[in-house]
Order: sequence, then structure tokens, then C-alpha cells
Amino acid sequence: MSETVTLTLDEAYALAFDTLSHWGFSADHAHSIARVIWAGQRDECHSHGLYRLLMISASIKAGTPMEQPVAKQAVPEVVDHAPGIVRVDARNGYSLLAFERGTPLLLEKARKQGIAAMAINHCFHFSALWPEVEALAEQGVAALAMLPSHNWVAPAGGSKPVFGTNPIGFAWPRPQHPPFVFDFATSAVARGEIELHRRAGKPLGEGWAVDAAGRPTTDPAAALQGAMLTFGGHKGSALSAMIELLAGPLIGDLMSIESMAFDNGAAASPYHGEIIIAFDPTVFTGAAAAQHAQRAELLFDAITGQGARLPSQRRYEARARSLANGTVTIPKKLHDDIRALTAG
Amino acid sequence: MSETVTLTLDEAYALAFDTLSHWGFSADHAHSIARVIWAGQRDECHSHGLYRLLMISASIKAGTPMEQPVAKQAVPEVVDHAPGIVRVDARNGYSLLAFERGTPLLLEKARKQGIAAMAINHCFHFSALWPEVEALAEQGVAALAMLPSHNWVAPAGGSKPVFGTNPIGFAWPRPQHPPFVFDFATSAVARGEIELHRRAGKPLGEGWAVDAAGRPTTDPAAALQGAMLTFGGHKGSALSAMIELLAGPLIGDLMSIESMAFDNGAAASPYHGEIIIAFDPTVFTGAAAAQHAQRAELLFDAITGQGARLPSQRRYEARARSLANGTVTIPKKLHDDIRALTAG
Repeated sequence: MSETVTLTLDEAYALAFDTLSHWGFSADHAHSIARVIWAGQRDECHSHGLYRLLMISASIKAGTPMEQPVAKQAVPEVVDHAPGIVRVDARNGYSLLAFERGTPLLLEKARKQGIAAMAINHCFHFSALWPEVEALAEQGVAALAMLPSHNWVAPAGGSKPVFGTNPIGFAWPRPQHPPFVFDFATSAVARGEIELHRRAGKPLGEGWAVDAAGRPTTDPAAALQGAMLTFGGHKGSALSAMIELLAGPLIGDLMSIESMAFDNGAAASPYHGEIIIAFDPTVFTGAAAAQHAQRAELLFDAITGQGARLPSQRRYEARARSLANGTVTIPKKLHDDIRALTAG
Repeated sequence: MSETVTLTLDEAYALAFDTLSHWGFSADHAHSIARVIWAGQRDECHSHGLYRLLMISASIKAGTPMEQPVAKQAVPEVVDHAPGIVRVDARNGYSLLAFERGTPLLLEKARKQGIAAMAINHCFHFSALWPEVEALAEQGVAALAMLPSHNWVAPAGGSKPVFGTNPIGFAWPRPQHPPFVFDFATSAVARGEIELHRRAGKPLGEGWAVDAAGRPTTDPAAALQGAMLTFGGHKGSALSAMIELLAGPLIGDLMSIESMAFDNGAAASPYHGEIIIAFDPTVFTGAAAAQHAQRAELLFDAITGQGARLPSQRRYEARARSLANGTVTIPKKLHDDIRALTAG
């Protein structure tokens, strides 16, 4: 049995914000990061909750990638780049403040053009995509977000890493419900799973990785010498390539191979760009949009009506619990580790 | 050993065009359909080559879905719907002429806005997506196309069909090569595979289908009573839901459940819409676009350099063979069957 610590929602937010401030992040960055860490903890996505503070700490204390550390005071620059494109230069800061700053113009463009894209450039990245696409869907647009990472993942038929874990996130606004949201890595599992299995001395699942010779392996150490695999065989591999292209060269930013090269062994957070596409249903179908939104509910009813779950259902259930209790609970060791990081 | 017939490329085109004309398609429809059937045969995608004439024949001779047969003379209406949206009303014809008619305005919008969408509405659909996204990439834009079909596929965790086989196609323009293209069903396999296995008395692959009680099955007959599954478990299922939403309610058209209901047992081609998104790299990154396009080649080199294949590599190799020979070869039985269809 392991000890836990229960924090009020306000205490959880303050723990994140104060820790980030202590490390020298500007108040704007500390708030933007604390908001998604808090939301992750509230939704019981533990790996994207307060635990992420440890990863941020490791990243900002890491060796310096290509003489370019995380810019903790960076002020993102929002550029009205084209009628359908917002560009946000994160100026080597974390991506989240750039996302927040660019969102109003992305929404304005989507509402005028019907479809618009936001290209975030020159950002370090550690966060899940669901907080972003969900926030956009709460403003009434459908949203699709993609980004590369470091090249840990081999293409179908190969054994050498080319792709990142390349997540894809999507949200659809629902009239009487929180948005339909998914967010998943196109790798078979998250990168952290391989390391967790290695530490625990547990074999990997089938289809997660190959060894350095390209042979399927369930040995975590062999996998770390080899490469992870994508989900879904050649189809997942194709999707992962698409994400590299749309969130890389299309927006003038780095692919996973290049992000890894930029890191140069520093072990900081991946450094690259992100693309977010927003679709405004009220532009696509005008006055009939509400009726089509109701029609979309047939899909969700057909899924939940047979006892299957929607992708974010567990997360929304956890959120309801956390909000009802007004608290979140984390391992005491994690709480101690976070506090130790600000003691110095 | 089975007998074959070798046709010149011109003969193959004429066979498709003349057959479609005989059935009453307008010359514009017959050309648009013959072009993709010819291209499929040229690329040795046999199920999307001349074989499709048999499926079109079955569809137009099928019972009449909801009093609305395939409109063989329909003239698609192209509407400049919003700065970022082209709508094409296919007016109950096949989708391909609508795609051709809308493409110039989609390209114009992508080149001005950076990103634009084409919504094709009210179309019958039987064709692959790669000819469309490849054609767009040959014009210098990246393209993403999606559409529903009939609900044959259960969501992850379920056993009742909700999704179509919901294909997704993507193309990226390459400076010194034909475009990077993929096009795959988000179902584990194509619908036709289940029927082919049933006829051949062969068991299905693992993970392709569930029986009516939701249990995994490799029995084709049990699968036809139950449901197909998506590729990639809950991730493929989430993607399939996204396709239903973006190519359905977003553009004001039918989802797979509704397409099946519309068909009303007629066994015609699925009737729904299609969304195609075009991204112009020269708007996203301006004068630097050529340099970023060269950088994208690092990705392809990293894949092919380790002996893995790009998604369309086999198809391009087949195309080179067909063009060099000036011929395509099909089973004699298929040739006989097609000719028999025009004898009456």
C-alpha cells in the first residue's frame, strides 16, 4: 500500500504554478503550463498531471540542446500570416502559451473562412493535445492537432527509428455534452511505457518494438537499442508520416529526426512545431448546422448505446469526480519529489 | 493457370468508357469514371481497375435506394460557399465528376487562403481516394480526403456496426518524385475481403471481425452476421469516428448509418458526402517552401534507405511497368464478364 496526498483543486494549481514560477518561468508561461497540468490531474491522466513537473524540471536542467535552452520568459509572436493561416512563433518557449495566444485569431479565421490552420513554430513540447482541441471545441469549432517528437519509431517494414510518437488529437463540439475528444500517439504505446517496463523488469507487449536487427522483441532493453513501432501496422506508419509532413515541412519546422539532432544528446523536451486545424460547422452548413450537430449525436448514441465507450469518457468521469470532491490525489512520493525540486 | 487478356492502354480506357456510355452515363461522367478505373488498372490495383465496372453495373441495376437511383447524367453544381470552402453538389451522381469540377476552385482557394476544404455532397461513391489526392499533389498542394460508406464496422468495445470502412487518403507533393500517397480503409480489411474469404471457404484473419454476440471470429459467415472491426483497436476506432463527423455532419451529409438506411436494402453504392482538405506549402512558408520540400525528402530517404517501402511504391512500380509496356493484363473471365454486360 502506498501513501497518497490529497490536494484541493486550488492547492494542485498553486503547486504547479508556484513550482514553475520558482524555476523562472514568466507568470504567463507558468499559468499556461499550470492550467494543462491541473486539467490533466483533474481528469486523472496521471502521466499528464503534476507528474509532468518532474519532466519539465529534467528538461530545463538537461544539457543545452544546440546552445538553445527552453526560453522560460519567451513572449510568443502571433502573425496573421494568410487568410487561412495563423502563425505563432513560440520563440523557443514551451508551446502552451503560444497556443493560447494564437487561439483567438485561429477562431476568428475559422469563423470567417470555414477552415483555418494555426502553425506553432519553434516550441519545446511536453503536453497532451486534448486540452487544446477540447478548448477549441468548447468554442464551437471542430479541431485537429498534430505534432512530431523525437525519432524513436520505425516505419512499417523497417527497424531504424524515423518517426516520433507523433500524437493526433481531435475534438468535435456537442450541443448538450462536453466535446467528443480523442488524443493518441501513433506509436503502439507511449515512449514512457518502454522505460517503465524496463525499470519494472516486465516484458513489453507484442508489436510494440523491434530490436536493433529489426526483429520483434518484448525485451525493453533490446527495444531501447532498436526502435518502437507504430500502432496499426502500415496504416499507422502512413499516418505517422503524414503527421511529420503536415506538422514539419509544411509549416517550416523540424521533423522528429531533426528534433532529435537538434537535441544533440541533451535529453531536453522535443523541439519542433505543431499544426492545429479548426473547422467551423456554422460556416460549412449555415443555419442547418444545429440540425447536423443533432444528427451527429446518432453516432455517439450508436456507440454508447451498445455499451462501448467514447474515447474521452473515462476522463470526463474522472473530471466529474474531481470537481465533485474538489480534490485530486497523488502519490506522496510524487508530492515529495515536486517539493524537493523547489527546495534548492 | 488462368487465361488472361492483354489490352493496350487505349483499349483499356475505351473498354471502360464505352461500357459506361452504353449504360447511359453522360460523356462527362463516363470520362471521369473511366479515368480512375484506367488509372487503377494501370497501377495494378486490380480491385479498383476494370473490375469496378462490374460493381457499377450491380449498383445501377440494384433496387432503387429511397426512390433515388444513381443519376447518370447529373451535372454537378460548384458553389463558392465561403472563402475557405468549395461545395459541390453531385446531384446524386457518382462523386468523380463532382471532384473534377470542384478541383480548380479548391486549388484557387488553397493558393489564396493557405488551407481550403472541398465538400462534395449527395454523391454515390465507389472509387479509391488515391487518384484524387495524387491529382491534387501533382498541382503542388498537400491533400487529405475522407469519407464514410455503409455501417459495417463496430466501434472498439462494441459488436454492432456503426462506422463505414471509412477510407482516408493523403498526398504530399515531392519535387523530383511522384507524390507521397497513401489511401487506406480504417476497417481492418476491405469489405470485399470478408466476402472473398466466404466464397473461398477460408478463415478470416484475427482481429478482422466479431460475430453477432460480439465475440472475435474468423468465420466469414459469422462475421457477415456480426460486424467488421477497425484497424488499430481503439485508435483506429477513434479515427473512424472522426471521419464520420468531418465527412458527414460537418459538411451536412450522411453518416454510414444513414447511408445504409438510405440504401434501404437496395444494395447500391453508398450514398453520402466527401471532404477534401488542401494545404498549399507555398502559402505556409513562402519563398522557403522549396527548401522545406527538400527537407521533407529526409523523411522519405530515412524510410527507403533502410529498405522499407513508401505506401505507394508498389503502385508506382506497377505504373512504370504498364506505361513501359503500353498494356494492362486482366483475367479473360473479367473481360468476358464486362463484355457480356454490354451485350444486352
